[in-house]
Amino acid sequence: MAKTFPTRFVTSLSATRNPERSRERILKAAFKEFAAKGFAGARVDTIARSASINKRMLYHYFGDKEALFREVLRRKMAERHAWGLATPDAPTESLPYWFDLACKDRGWVRLLEWEALQFAEGPLIDEERRRNSAREAVRRILRRQSRGHLCDDFDASQILMAMLALTWFPVAFPQLTKLITGKLPSGATFLREQRDFLKRFAKAFEARTFVKPAGNHSANGRAKFK
Amino acid sequence: MAKTFPTRFVTSLSATRNPERSRERILKAAFKEFAAKGFAGARVDTIARSASINKRMLYHYFGDKEALFREVLRRKMAERHAWGLATPDAPTESLPYWFDLACKDRGWVRLLEWEALQFAEGPLIDEERRRNSAREAVRRILRRQSRGHLCDDFDASQILMAMLALTWFPVAFPQLTKLITGKLPSGATFLREQRDFLKRFAKAFEARTFVKPAGNHSANGRAKFK
Repeated sequence: MAKTFPTRFVTSLSATRNPERSRERILKAAFKEFAAKGFAGARVDTIARSASINKRMLYHYFGDKEALFREVLRRKMAERHAWGLATPDAPTESLPYWFDLACKDRGWVRLLEWEALQFAEGPLIDEERRRNSAREAVRRILRRQSRGHLCDDFDASQILMAMLALTWFPVAFPQLTKLITGKLPSGATFLREQRDFLKRFAKAFEARTFVKPAGNHSANGRAKFK
Repeated sequence: MAKTFPTRFVTSLSATRNPERSRERILKAAFKEFAAKGFAGARVDTIARSASINKRMLYHYFGDKEALFREVLRRKMAERHAWGLATPDAPTESLPYWFDLACKDRGWVRLLEWEALQFAEGPLIDEERRRNSAREAVRRILRRQSRGHLCDDFDASQILMAMLALTWFPVAFPQLTKLITGKLPSGATFLREQRDFLKRFAKAFEARTFVKPAGNHSANGRAKFK
């Protein structure tokens, strides 16, 4: 259908004149809507309206709601992949870095929370590609373990899960953060204290028994925990 | 209204004969519905139907949807309070214990996820009482720190947050667990490995009674407890 769509009849001139910018606007609006209401609750009408494009045009670009969601995921994953590559090696740096990313990218955490509630263990949209992306993240942890930046007492996937857990929790459960700490989860005080906590708690992920001749990082964390 | 409700006209005999059991059935059905769809999405109709009670009777017992939600929360909090009191002192025991509770009580984690998405930092239902309950949980951590079961390098509230994060994450994000570990989050293999991981990772929370090297930030002047 996409190929035979009679673009000459489309009224939205801006869309035909600059399809790249239109796609961009749609994806931005779609991410916002999916983060706000989840896949099931999101309305294509709302996305089209907020991207100032007509709904037919949106379908022309992206097919249906699921295809649009898939595209939003892929874009986001590409963006986050770049952030992942830029992750500092030392856990004392990477935990605060991941926490900052979670805070800056609350929409992503929310979108995954919606997904958790609505899909749980069932088949995921774009599962295959996402599994590959998760595997890559695990491999990056493995590399840090083999280079002595992260302790190798644990499976790389368990370390990844634990690092995500610690850095995402306050963003995923802002109300519990507020109840437990008495502070506003997006307030400067909480953010500073949590970043500081993560920096110090990161010792738990440091290589302890690891000895490597070349490129060995300081024996700082070694034998700390016995 | 509750006081003047003409119970003699109520058709549901079971309800009038055993109001305690009816309340119980309603609360159980309500918890299930709130966990499945969140506060906003939950339908009082559905709750009444699944509790086999008429809706008027439900309103008679609990007032409105918010009052019912509050009652569900309070009941759950009382139950979880008892579990909290039964938490083992040693983190090598308490982390697997909390993980087991999260797995057994997935509905509670889901309910709080819905709340996170729908209320975020805004005013919570029954906030005052829940803040007190959170404070109590923090005090229990504090007591464990002062008795030397948990390290006192960190604020008790930060330890509580970290312990919740690590033990809840796989339940809160089952799809990420599946993508990252390649295992079914509710499957026996994952559960065993995660419990084992938590038991070992718990060392990070243990009181460290050995002398720390100079310049270590944890030597913040506080007395060490045995």
